Amino acid sequence: MNELLLEALRCRNSGRPPVWLMRQAGRYMPEYRALRQKYSLWELFHQPELAAHVTLLPIDMLGVDAAILFSDILVIVEAFGRNVQFVENKGPVIDTPINDKSDVDALKIYDIKEIFGYVEKAIQLVKGRLQVPLIGFCGGPFTVASYMIEPGSKGELKKTKQWIYRDPETFHRLLDKIATASIEYLKLQIDAGVQAIQIFDSWANVLSYQQYEQFSLKYLKQIVDALRYTSIPIILFARGSSLFPKELSEIGPSAISFDWQKCLPELRQSVPPHIAVQGNLDPILMNAPQEIIKAEVQELLYSMRGDPGFIVNLGHGVLPDAPVDNVKLLVDTVKSFSL
Amino acid sequence: MNELLLEALRCRNSGRPPVWLMRQAGRYMPEYRALRQKYSLWELFHQPELAAHVTLLPIDMLGVDAAILFSDILVIVEAFGRNVQFVENKGPVIDTPINDKSDVDALKIYDIKEIFGYVEKAIQLVKGRLQVPLIGFCGGPFTVASYMIEPGSKGELKKTKQWIYRDPETFHRLLDKIATASIEYLKLQIDAGVQAIQIFDSWANVLSYQQYEQFSLKYLKQIVDALRYTSIPIILFARGSSLFPKELSEIGPSAISFDWQKCLPELRQSVPPHIAVQGNLDPILMNAPQEIIKAEVQELLYSMRGDPGFIVNLGHGVLPDAPVDNVKLLVDTVKSFSL
Repeated sequence: MNELLLEALRCRNSGRPPVWLMRQAGRYMPEYRALRQKYSLWELFHQPELAAHVTLLPIDMLGVDAAILFSDILVIVEAFGRNVQFVENKGPVIDTPINDKSDVDALKIYDIKEIFGYVEKAIQLVKGRLQVPLIGFCGGPFTVASYMIEPGSKGELKKTKQWIYRDPETFHRLLDKIATASIEYLKLQIDAGVQAIQIFDSWANVLSYQQYEQFSLKYLKQIVDALRYTSIPIILFARGSSLFPKELSEIGPSAISFDWQKCLPELRQSVPPHIAVQGNLDPILMNAPQEIIKAEVQELLYSMRGDPGFIVNLGHGVLPDAPVDNVKLLVDTVKSFSL
Repeated sequence: MNELLLEALRCRNSGRPPVWLMRQAGRYMPEYRALRQKYSLWELFHQPELAAHVTLLPIDMLGVDAAILFSDILVIVEAFGRNVQFVENKGPVIDTPINDKSDVDALKIYDIKEIFGYVEKAIQLVKGRLQVPLIGFCGGPFTVASYMIEPGSKGELKKTKQWIYRDPETFHRLLDKIATASIEYLKLQIDAGVQAIQIFDSWANVLSYQQYEQFSLKYLKQIVDALRYTSIPIILFARGSSLFPKELSEIGPSAISFDWQKCLPELRQSVPPHIAVQGNLDPILMNAPQEIIKAEVQELLYSMRGDPGFIVNLGHGVLPDAPVDNVKLLVDTVKSFSL
């Protein structure tokens, strides 16, 4: 069993750093694109055998040190009896958006074990076939809320932010409901066998700093605190992380995943040594010439050498047009690194 | 003559802070929308009488402490004998994009005084009718380059960034040519009478930190250094500014304009006292209830009280659907502030 990731998450890894990639199973892989010809995203997420199969694709193909469950942060809306459609080139769209206070009041959390039986099953299938740790995940409550309010929006989240100004109390109640559902959903994943959790607060960077504290960080902390008894390691991924290493550290996660806007050794200085750091290569590096990829990965490895809590990753997901050979080169460069 | 802005840019303002707004002349104003029914954006930029008229609109309507020339950062491509179209809902589109090394080699700077005679004329017209300082501007070379390479792109600038990886030397030469043209263009504006300059590097935040230093900051510095002999105050606006207060300070501008991702008093600590700071309200605040607008503006003013180098602005341009009354309330709240 390869435990590099778990060792790094405990900040006690003495070997080479572990490497895995966000969206390591995705459109850049021919095998994945072939599957998508036959199945919709919804089917890939909801049929345990398919979800397990896709989860395992990059383990075999890339030899990464961790698997991450193939799913989407938006399936959590099913906890509220809602459905989500995954529309090509448009992103996830919730069937009945949240429009006002009465919609928030009416939100009710259904039986998580019943609804997410398919996730439990997929995790169990993956676990039986895996020699590396499996990461489970959920979305940050702010990000999930913004999708529930503005389905298909990719931009400034104006409606969401105006709601915050107009009626912060109701917005807090919405976030609290999402956080509560997310905690139950993560417990189900943990019970089913995931060995680490990553929380993706992908849209938090649109908030002003006051709002970021109150409407994003607060609910990440609620989730982290609620799961502390399980001792499961939790990685926080928040866009804009380079701006807020101290604030994210105060939540007390096991690790923080950083984007590529700051130099990782510099960010490291703002993160206590018992919290691991993950990142932080620019995803577009995968479309660079191979000698540049190798040089930049080695530079990152060298700059973080000897850090017992360092996990190599991109700062965001693998892009759909990343050449497979280049992604492999990234992984191989990490795996063959020695000082 | 109201000299509050110039005093603040010299970090010696002892009165209330000056206030002006990026895109203070724009679609949120009924008068502007009426003009756009009659004239294209191209006409508004290129006809001096119209450009002067639009420049002055917010002075009368809002009572701001500075005017900014009504123009666009992309007109600089005319220096290279290119044209730019301003396409509704698509942004500026250059007629002949830069595709490869030979395009960069062929770029030639034409007679700036001849090409931008219309800008000179507009500045002279405005100056004769103005009781506040007039700000001239240009785009940051990286931002202009990205528009020349990827017209209409709003996203990740993949083509531009791949070019940087593939052939950094040619990209540097492109940036150098744009910087050289920008310096001449700014000199023309200064000779015509603008009293301060703002450089907009709007897309710099897509770069990784290594690229940011080499491909954005370096050329901002080239412009600032070239104009130092004129003693004209220069304000740097770069997206992602909250991440890089120290790096932007090292360029030696008169002021740095900050976005809303960090608290301004905190950013202030990373900027030397002889450099002014500008910002940093969230543009979407203009769509909030009026009591919230007033409270947030007052909070900003209070937090920066007594700072002789503080200029109130939004962190980015006024949004098209900002209610005029709310924008006025922002300005009035600053103008009536006293401790």
